[in-house]
Amino acid sequence: MMAVAASVPEWLGRRALLTPDRVALGGEGGWVRYAELDAWAGRIAAALAQAGIEPHDRVGVLLEGSPRAAALVHALVRLGAVLVALHPRERPEETRFKLKASGAVAVVYSPASEDLARAAAPAIPALALSELAAGKAAPRPPRPMDLAEPLAVVFTSGTTGQPRGAVLSAGNFWWNAVSSGLLLGVVPGDMWLSAMPLAHVGGLAILMRAVIDGAAVLLLPRFDPEAVNRAIDDEGVTLTSVVPQMLQRMLEARGRRPYPARLRAALVGGGPTPQELRDAAWELGLAVAPTYGLTETASQAATLMPDQVATHPGSSGLPLFAMEIAIGRPGPADPGAEGEILVRGPQVISGYLDGAADVLEAGWLHTGDVGFLDDFGHLHVLDRRDDLIVSGGENVYPAQVEAVLAAHPDVAEAGVVGVADARWGQVPVALVVVRPGRALDGDAIRAFCGQRLAPFKVPVRIQAVAELPRTAAGKLRRARLRELIDPEVTGS
Amino acid sequence: MMAVAASVPEWLGRRALLTPDRVALGGEGGWVRYAELDAWAGRIAAALAQAGIEPHDRVGVLLEGSPRAAALVHALVRLGAVLVALHPRERPEETRFKLKASGAVAVVYSPASEDLARAAAPAIPALALSELAAGKAAPRPPRPMDLAEPLAVVFTSGTTGQPRGAVLSAGNFWWNAVSSGLLLGVVPGDMWLSAMPLAHVGGLAILMRAVIDGAAVLLLPRFDPEAVNRAIDDEGVTLTSVVPQMLQRMLEARGRRPYPARLRAALVGGGPTPQELRDAAWELGLAVAPTYGLTETASQAATLMPDQVATHPGSSGLPLFAMEIAIGRPGPADPGAEGEILVRGPQVISGYLDGAADVLEAGWLHTGDVGFLDDFGHLHVLDRRDDLIVSGGENVYPAQVEAVLAAHPDVAEAGVVGVADARWGQVPVALVVVRPGRALDGDAIRAFCGQRLAPFKVPVRIQAVAELPRTAAGKLRRARLRELIDPEVTGS
Repeated sequence: MMAVAASVPEWLGRRALLTPDRVALGGEGGWVRYAELDAWAGRIAAALAQAGIEPHDRVGVLLEGSPRAAALVHALVRLGAVLVALHPRERPEETRFKLKASGAVAVVYSPASEDLARAAAPAIPALALSELAAGKAAPRPPRPMDLAEPLAVVFTSGTTGQPRGAVLSAGNFWWNAVSSGLLLGVVPGDMWLSAMPLAHVGGLAILMRAVIDGAAVLLLPRFDPEAVNRAIDDEGVTLTSVVPQMLQRMLEARGRRPYPARLRAALVGGGPTPQELRDAAWELGLAVAPTYGLTETASQAATLMPDQVATHPGSSGLPLFAMEIAIGRPGPADPGAEGEILVRGPQVISGYLDGAADVLEAGWLHTGDVGFLDDFGHLHVLDRRDDLIVSGGENVYPAQVEAVLAAHPDVAEAGVVGVADARWGQVPVALVVVRPGRALDGDAIRAFCGQRLAPFKVPVRIQAVAELPRTAAGKLRRARLRELIDPEVTGS
Repeated sequence: MMAVAASVPEWLGRRALLTPDRVALGGEGGWVRYAELDAWAGRIAAALAQAGIEPHDRVGVLLEGSPRAAALVHALVRLGAVLVALHPRERPEETRFKLKASGAVAVVYSPASEDLARAAAPAIPALALSELAAGKAAPRPPRPMDLAEPLAVVFTSGTTGQPRGAVLSAGNFWWNAVSSGLLLGVVPGDMWLSAMPLAHVGGLAILMRAVIDGAAVLLLPRFDPEAVNRAIDDEGVTLTSVVPQMLQRMLEARGRRPYPARLRAALVGGGPTPQELRDAAWELGLAVAPTYGLTETASQAATLMPDQVATHPGSSGLPLFAMEIAIGRPGPADPGAEGEILVRGPQVISGYLDGAADVLEAGWLHTGDVGFLDDFGHLHVLDRRDDLIVSGGENVYPAQVEAVLAAHPDVAEAGVVGVADARWGQVPVALVVVRPGRALDGDAIRAFCGQRLAPFKVPVRIQAVAELPRTAAGKLRRARLRELIDPEVTGS
């Protein structure tokens, strides 16, 4: 009877009308206000159009975080083109694969990514961001946005197999921003710090949240723990988003100096946040908000608020306002029952580049992750289903074992994989990075695990490695972990 | 290609999951937290179901503001029934008209409104709120909401002719709440003060905004300036919403005592906020936010933030985030050009009980109000089109003349109407309430107007009255004004 209007004013144009004088972006090149950003994005959009880019075209974006790169993102939105997220540090074959899979008609590069752009995409136009950003054409005006229209293609950093392009609509980002704001608050004067690559949904979601909320974004070109700590101290940052490994490096670089109270929340997602890390952050007054997020939900799907971290150990928090979470099958979940995590709601994508029939069921996305909801409705993430180790018929969740290992005083980081075993089918093997000045005592660590885990979850072998293989976004690459295993050590 | 999911978790159920311990409601009977409100609304919903109310049924609500009444509103949402907003102080014929027009199947009353309910609706069940609220049935659980579903029928307080029932969807309220939050901020610890009748869209919008944002609502049974001032001083109120006449009475009752700074904004809508009133509020540190709102947009459509009141005299502010405003015809307006105000966006209703073809054009609602957008995009409301006085071919906007009259030291309030005139077609006549201790000097007041208005806008007569006729919500009833005019005074 009554249709919900899905057309809304373009976010940047509206923000420039409402709060023209608020700071929008900061980073390399200084600070930019919303009125300036609006004109800048309008000029870049005009330059893109002059370069032949049309609405609905897909455009590869191969850029580090900077105000200029953020302006390019908003320019693509203004034009109605679809951003294809690429990472400046990935290999040419991966970039080539993504450009081909998405049917991109052009790629935008920075000085640091020019070689990669040309190597990966010799057949389509490569556009220099510096030239686009210096365009003098009359700014393209804002246009109404349809929340159903595609805004970005972001490839899931699948740790096995080929990357898969999730098609994120404007509405996916809108609902993520609104729901995140209903949880974290929308406080005038907010400033996000983004050290996330723009190729990561977390980096894009920060840009979209900020322009909707009227917050500022301080963009760092790459993650550097000293630079992040300095920005938090000196620039008035109130919100940020990192993966656990980044948090750990921030804390290591920090020493004992407390974080300022105006940092309201540091979302920590992309993997489990071990209790040890939560505790260490707490000691420095850092308001950690463990988060369960997915590319397919435009980032945050559930978040544990900092004031609940102490009372809800192991929790990844409550679903965002408009997000439904089910376990195993659609519908209400039994508290404590473990199973695949399913998500539904307007944040959830409708499909991938290659369809979605395999993971979408009546609006419910099968995430492939495993977890449970507790008596308070909090989500606990056990592991990626793909990484599940089945040992003697029992489920071993690598992330759970890694969290225990990380709590041992000699261990800096740990990764766990299953290896074939004649008797048990699979057994867990751990690779650990030993803390500086410490030595590896495998038996002691196994005993430590034995006090905290069921016997079948205790790694049969502990192997030291110099570093763990991670994706550009900092997530553990479990498939590569396996390649590091020394057969002499693991053979059973 | 990709549909925007319009199904979201029920707001109260979700809020009880996310922030069970936050205060939800206060007023008669004390304070209630979100977990308690959730159970309470669930029990009332079960009691309504036992009384035969089914999803999609329309139910008349004839209640003063109270936590219990607010719980009833949430119970109707939980059940999927549609609230028909009625006013406890209106006349039985009006109530009867509204119940009949909406096809209500029952009416809910309080002790104070029982006689009215029985007189107006002898043929349908009348349900006592006290009995529903004391129900002991198992609470009905939350259900997914469809943003397109109707949530309430609110009658426009049309000052001429019969009231017209606007059908407000869940999405209309959702988008109002979200857009309002993007303007005012969503600050943990927020508390709304509502002295608006629940029959007024402003009162309902406060309830919906609060449950979405996780704010508290302090409900007063009726507007009393002393009680409102006391609540602002003592209860931690951060936001409120009043009509100009309420603001004036608050200030009169206040004396010279400043308002606390934690009151972040007092939305003032339902009519123009004269500059004199803005100034008087400013002197007491009251953060006034002049607002243009409509029943048809689930309240706020444009708002001037308090920090812009001094620099944008006469402005009703900027459109809310997802609201488009046009003047005269759809599309961008020329700055300064006067015409009918048109609004479009997901806050705007899709229809009235009797259709909407006369006022809706491709999503644009013709409001009947007259105004213009200035160079900054701010909306200036000149008047209701229905009230326009055409004098010698020139447009005279009563609200503009009233604002000038209200600035005169002898005048407490003023109303202006057009009366027939042989020479000019119509001429403006003013009815004024004289300030206590002052006398009416019509010639002095006309001279005062002559210094501030074009000659054709100066009232030809000034008549003193004891009070001005207003609707229950405090809006001027212009049709009744006309009945007060003394022919001896006005005849020309």
